[in-house]
This record gives sequence, C-alpha cells and structure tokens, in this order.
Amino acid sequence: MKQVSIAILGFGTVGSGVYQVLTEGRDSIRHRELMSVEVKHILVKDLVTEKNIGLAPMGLYTTDITEITSDPEISIVVECMGGTVPAKDFILRALAAGKTVVTSNKEVLAKHWPDFERQAKATGAGLYFEATAGGGVPIIRALLDSMQGNNITRLMGIINGTTNYILTKMTDEGRPYSEVLAEAQKLGYAEANPTADVDGWDCVYKLSILASIAFHARVNIDDIYREGISKVSAEDIAVAKKLGYTIKLLAIGKKMDGNLEVRVHPTMLHNSHPLASVSGVFNGIFLTGDAVGDIMLYGQGAGKLPTASAIVSDVIYAANAHEHRYMTFVNEFDAPQWLVHQKDWLSGYFIRLTASDELGSLSKIAGVLGDSGVSVHSVMQFNENPHRNTAELVFITDPARELSVQSALARLRGLSCVESIDSVMRVEE
Amino acid sequence: MKQVSIAILGFGTVGSGVYQVLTEGRDSIRHRELMSVEVKHILVKDLVTEKNIGLAPMGLYTTDITEITSDPEISIVVECMGGTVPAKDFILRALAAGKTVVTSNKEVLAKHWPDFERQAKATGAGLYFEATAGGGVPIIRALLDSMQGNNITRLMGIINGTTNYILTKMTDEGRPYSEVLAEAQKLGYAEANPTADVDGWDCVYKLSILASIAFHARVNIDDIYREGISKVSAEDIAVAKKLGYTIKLLAIGKKMDGNLEVRVHPTMLHNSHPLASVSGVFNGIFLTGDAVGDIMLYGQGAGKLPTASAIVSDVIYAANAHEHRYMTFVNEFDAPQWLVHQKDWLSGYFIRLTASDELGSLSKIAGVLGDSGVSVHSVMQFNENPHRNTAELVFITDPARELSVQSALARLRGLSCVESIDSVMRVEE
Repeated sequence: MKQVSIAILGFGTVGSGVYQVLTEGRDSIRHRELMSVEVKHILVKDLVTEKNIGLAPMGLYTTDITEITSDPEISIVVECMGGTVPAKDFILRALAAGKTVVTSNKEVLAKHWPDFERQAKATGAGLYFEATAGGGVPIIRALLDSMQGNNITRLMGIINGTTNYILTKMTDEGRPYSEVLAEAQKLGYAEANPTADVDGWDCVYKLSILASIAFHARVNIDDIYREGISKVSAEDIAVAKKLGYTIKLLAIGKKMDGNLEVRVHPTMLHNSHPLASVSGVFNGIFLTGDAVGDIMLYGQGAGKLPTASAIVSDVIYAANAHEHRYMTFVNEFDAPQWLVHQKDWLSGYFIRLTASDELGSLSKIAGVLGDSGVSVHSVMQFNENPHRNTAELVFITDPARELSVQSALARLRGLSCVESIDSVMRVEE
Repeated sequence: MKQVSIAILGFGTVGSGVYQVLTEGRDSIRHRELMSVEVKHILVKDLVTEKNIGLAPMGLYTTDITEITSDPEISIVVECMGGTVPAKDFILRALAAGKTVVTSNKEVLAKHWPDFERQAKATGAGLYFEATAGGGVPIIRALLDSMQGNNITRLMGIINGTTNYILTKMTDEGRPYSEVLAEAQKLGYAEANPTADVDGWDCVYKLSILASIAFHARVNIDDIYREGISKVSAEDIAVAKKLGYTIKLLAIGKKMDGNLEVRVHPTMLHNSHPLASVSGVFNGIFLTGDAVGDIMLYGQGAGKLPTASAIVSDVIYAANAHEHRYMTFVNEFDAPQWLVHQKDWLSGYFIRLTASDELGSLSKIAGVLGDSGVSVHSVMQFNENPHRNTAELVFITDPARELSVQSALARLRGLSCVESIDSVMRVEE
C-alpha cells in the first residue's frame, strides 16, 4: 500500500475540514485507492490561541514552516491559509523543497501563478488547485481531464456563494441590498468586511484561474472587468422578475476569433437559462465547447467539507500521478500575441430610466439608441407618475457593443426628457 | 512529443465523430497535450456498403480485426460499434493483445465488465468508458478522480435523452405519449424500435455502470428494478403540473447502512429540484456525497460530437497514464456480502384513482392506506363527474415502504368504492 505523508498549512475551517475528511475517510481511502494518507504536521500561527488546537493529536501541531519543508517524509503540502502573506512564501518554499502543493487559496494563485509554476517545474513538484474555484464542484479537473478535445468558447459562472445568497434573498423576499447584506453578516454567510465578495474580487480571482485553463492563455486579474452587486436595487430585481429574468453576479469569459473577453458583473439571465435556477450559496459553472456543446456543473462552492472534498481529491490525484503536468501557458504565453483582450464586447443591455411623460420622449430616446448603433429588442413602460408627470421606461437591447452603449448613455443623459438613468445591466443568453 | 496510434472499431455516428474531433483538434491537442494522436485503422463491416467510407483516407479502412490487434504500433483501440456481438469479442481480443480499450458501448460494458477487467489486468491494458454514461457529461471521471474522499449515498440521473425529450414534449404541449413518440421517431430522436430507450434498458445499462463506481460494488443489470415511460399518461402529467411537479424517467441509486437500492422508473420531482429543469435531450446527474454535499452535472448525454468529446478525453487520459487502474470490486466483490440489495425501498408515492363520490369513500380509502402503514402527505379531489357519480382522487404519501404500498394498492382494488386505480408513481425529493 502506498504511504503518503502530508502537512496542512492553516487549521481554520478548510484545514480542519481536510483533517476531518481524511480521518473519517481513512478506511475507505485505503480500501479503494490502496493508499494510506497520513497528516504528519499541521502548521498554525500560535499554539496557545489557535482555536482548533486539540482537534488533532498535539504532536502534529507546529508553528515552524521549516519543520515541514525540511521533513523528507512529507511529499504533499496542503495550503489552506488564505491571503498572500505568508501563503505565497510558504508555497514557494514547499515547492523549492520538492513538495507538491495542493491549495485552496484563489487569491495567491491568481496573483502569483507563474512564480509557482516556475518553481514547481524547477524541482518537479506538482501544483494542484481544484478547491480554488467552485469549492466542491470539480470544474478544474473537468476542464483539464475531460474536455481536452474541445475548443472552449464560453464560460459563465456563479462562483461566489455569498453574493448569490444575497441576490437570491433579495429576489425571493423583495428586500433591499443593505438589509439582506446585514442579515447575511449576522448569519455568518458574509464577512464583517464583505468587500472581497460583494465587490467581485473573489470572482475575479476565480475567473482568472478558470479562464486561464479554459482558454489556454494566462488571464491576469488586471485584465478582468469588475463590477460588484452593491448597486443592484430591489427595483431592478422587481422589474427583472416581471420580465421573466433573474439577476446573478456572473463571471464571464468568451473567446472568439482570437479575441478574449473576461468580465464579472451583475447580469440578467432569462429564467429558462440553467444558471438562473442556481440559488442560495450554490455555485454553477456553464461551459460551451465546440464538441461537447453546453455543459453545467453545479454544487457547493464553499464551506468546510465541500472544499475539503476538493482538496482531498487533489491529494489523492497528486499522490497517484507518475509525473506532474504544468500549465505551459503560464510561462510561455504570459502576454499571448494571439489573444486580444476585447473590451468592446457584445452584450444585451437592460436600461431603466425615468423620462418625462410627454409626447415625443420615447421617440427621442429610441432615436439616440438607434443613432448609436444600439438596436432595441423590447421596451416597456412602468409606474407612470401623473403627479410628477414622469414614467419609468425599460429597454432591453439586442446584443450591442459596449462602447456604443456607453456613448448612447452619455447622449441620453444630455436629453432634457431624461430625468435619470436608474439602472444599466448587461443581459446574457 | 508523444506519438499515439489508435484504431477505431465501427464508423457510424460516434466513430466518425471521434475521427472528426481528432482531426479538427489535431493542432490544439499537439500544442496543449504535447501529444500527437493518429488514427491508423478504422474497422468497418463492409468496404462497399459502409456509408462513411470516404470520410477518412481509404488506406485506413479495414474489415479485419486482426490487422488491428496484431499491429504493434496500436496502443489504444476505440470501440464504437454498439451491441454485444461482435463488440464483446473484439474488446477481449484487443485487451488480450495488450491494447487499451476506450468504449462508448454501455450495453457490452454493463453485461461483461468483469470479463473485460480480468483480461485488462492480465495484460496491463487499460479500460476507459467515460462515454458510456452521460455522453459528453464527465460524470465517470468526476466519480473516480474528484470524489475519492466521499461516501456517496445517492445518485439520481436523467440519463436517457430520448425519453427526456418525449416527457418534455408531453409536458410542454400536453400531448399523449404515442403521438409524441411517433413524432420523435420521425425526427430521428427515437429509434424505429424504441424499446431500448422507452422501456428503460438504456438507463439500466448506464445505472449499472454509474452505481458500480459510485457505490464501489458491482451492480448487475439484473439487480436493477426497471419501469419504462410508456404508461405515463397526459393526465398524469397534467395533474403533476397542477401540483408543481415534473415527471422524469430517473435512474436512482441509494446506499444506506449497507443497503443498496437501484431502480429506473418514471418519477415525480418537485419543480424546485435541479433535475426538474433538465429538459429535452439534455442529461443531468445529481449526486450526494457526505463531504461534497449535493452536486449536479448537466449536458448532452448523446449525439455525435458530445460522445466523441468524452471518447477523445479518454484517449488522451489513457495515453497520459503511467499505469492503468482497475476496478477492484469487479472481481473481488462480485457478490458483496456487505451490501444488501434492498427491494423494499422508501419513497413517496403519487396515487391517482377514480372513486365513487359518496359519503365515506375518502375515509375508507385513507383507512386502508393508514392500516398498511402508508401515511398520507396530501390529498386532492379533481374532476368530479356528477353524471357517473365519481370523482378523481390524488394522494401523495409521505415516504413509505414499497411493499406496504403494494399491499395497500391490492386492498384498495378490493374496495367497492374504488372504481379504478389510474396511476401509481414514485415521488423523490
């Protein structure tokens, strides 16, 4: 039977989950995989204050990374610390010592992937990261091991559980963003400082990883357009509902004719789209490949045990690997000549505005859109306000160029009959 | 660069799809996988009548399997013939010659898996079958390579596109089974002889494969309860709709406390279940693991290119493998002592019957159910017919034992107030 000794860096929710899954699954992993996985060291910050001390035998805990990197028995290091300091340094030291690294840390991977790959290649160590995107959803293995014959043209994902929980609650209960966020914070579904989630940073890290793999080109986080959910209003959701749409924070990647577009923003999806029914803390990743067609993977994108499930699968996969494979694109195609980052993407748009309710308003507004090359798919009038002599107008456009829409919006703001542009949201099919 | 020479057995829809994906993807596979995959032989029945002759260079075609099994350059044989004769024999001969076999043939694998495993082990050849269940959906790799730390307790799948297409059409358009089947046959979505699909055989083969992997025990096709869709009526679908349910042909596997239940039958699912919105020819497989929680994979379960996508991924995966892994359970646990095939499963039931509309009918019927240990979750009365003095009653039960329900049904048939039991269908959550 193969003996595998590992170390866990960080023993919070995820690290202790990995220990739990390996301990409870010990017998079945031995039986099924003919492999014994032993946790030999657990790196913690402080032996006195760390709250999970005691979950494992005391002898396993250490505060010294060199005890792990210098232990010749350790072949795999599992990093679950999060953040970049000291995670980046510890990962590099483990790789330099020839230890394979399994990480759930999307931020450090998205920011320093090329450094890790170079170091891993130099010592022949492996680098595995299924848990960085989609939590328990095996999206990375699916891209690497199940779609090799495909040219992937599109990736759309609900890959942040916190924001999906907030948007689902807003949709189901008609409540405003701030109220639902406060409740999510109280319930522990959102952090006290929610920026990483609600402003879309978490999605940007994950999309950087997923798009790099799917499109075989390094996608840096700076290349990704980002818009969070804090401006999504209860009114937007109510109008979307009336029209048969759901609002989701989507991470989108599209490749066409050498153009790549990568963006994270609130998006209107028709209710018939498979992603529209991915609710609460669940994640869903929708892919289109030229051979496989449309595919979706759905599951829990975060949480102690789902994330641990992905990490343990990486540990076993890495231990079974005869030699580790590397992302050639990370080094060789850092600035790929053959993929142009397209900022002038094509998308449908939802535009909600308040206009004076007078003859000719609609025609003026529609005229500006048309002149800008933005074709109107449908228009609806809601909530006439006779006291103020205004009306709420909602346009949904056919797929239009981003720059054309922005220029149309600038011109609309200059029209005297437009009181305010209340919301602009992209629509995907 | 790694050179891989393969042979394709059978050049119908799937075989020619494999050739197409390998040819069109040639450059990207070389670039990404550092591998050149060359199709060296294509086995066909008859060089004169085979309709796809000419799609590939003439020199590739052969009608002689020994030309393939005796060619030392061939390392992988892709079997896409379907059926068991001569596929079983050809697979065994290829394995005996030390060639790795990649197959999309669910019937031959479900029936002869242990024979293939024994032969593969004997020569060190590999056996890969991602395309046998779920078509392009990478469900088998997900089970084997992404959920190793999990104890899987439940698997529910829509794994036959033809029946899902028929049920979706019946649901969307309110049309009867026979009419929709005839149309599906005309459009090529159903075979002239539709038995394998509509009677559930195709699902049985696939469930045998999926359940064997998920539950780490050989599940024979004879162990699987089977019921097709031909008795699903437009009335059942209409009533289900009213109650917020959708009817799907599900393949179900559950493991609990050493009991295993495996069954294929029409099933009512609440519309909020992720599988309920898997429509048309799409497949969806829903899994529950103790670590990962609920997961669903969704995509095209059949068709030329999706199936070829799965086969090509197997070819590349197999060519990258340093050594092949075997299903230990196939030989060692042919009749596992530790898993009892449970036939008296727990399930909710939908019972639709016509009763005489007189005082006391409902109480008599509910009494029989209660006496049999079947607890009623809800009851509704539809379509009173005052001319005949009858009413249609619909019961949905709490989870109840199969044998208790069957005994209650026998007693209900004996009640004078019960005119007919019009439909009985299981309900899953």
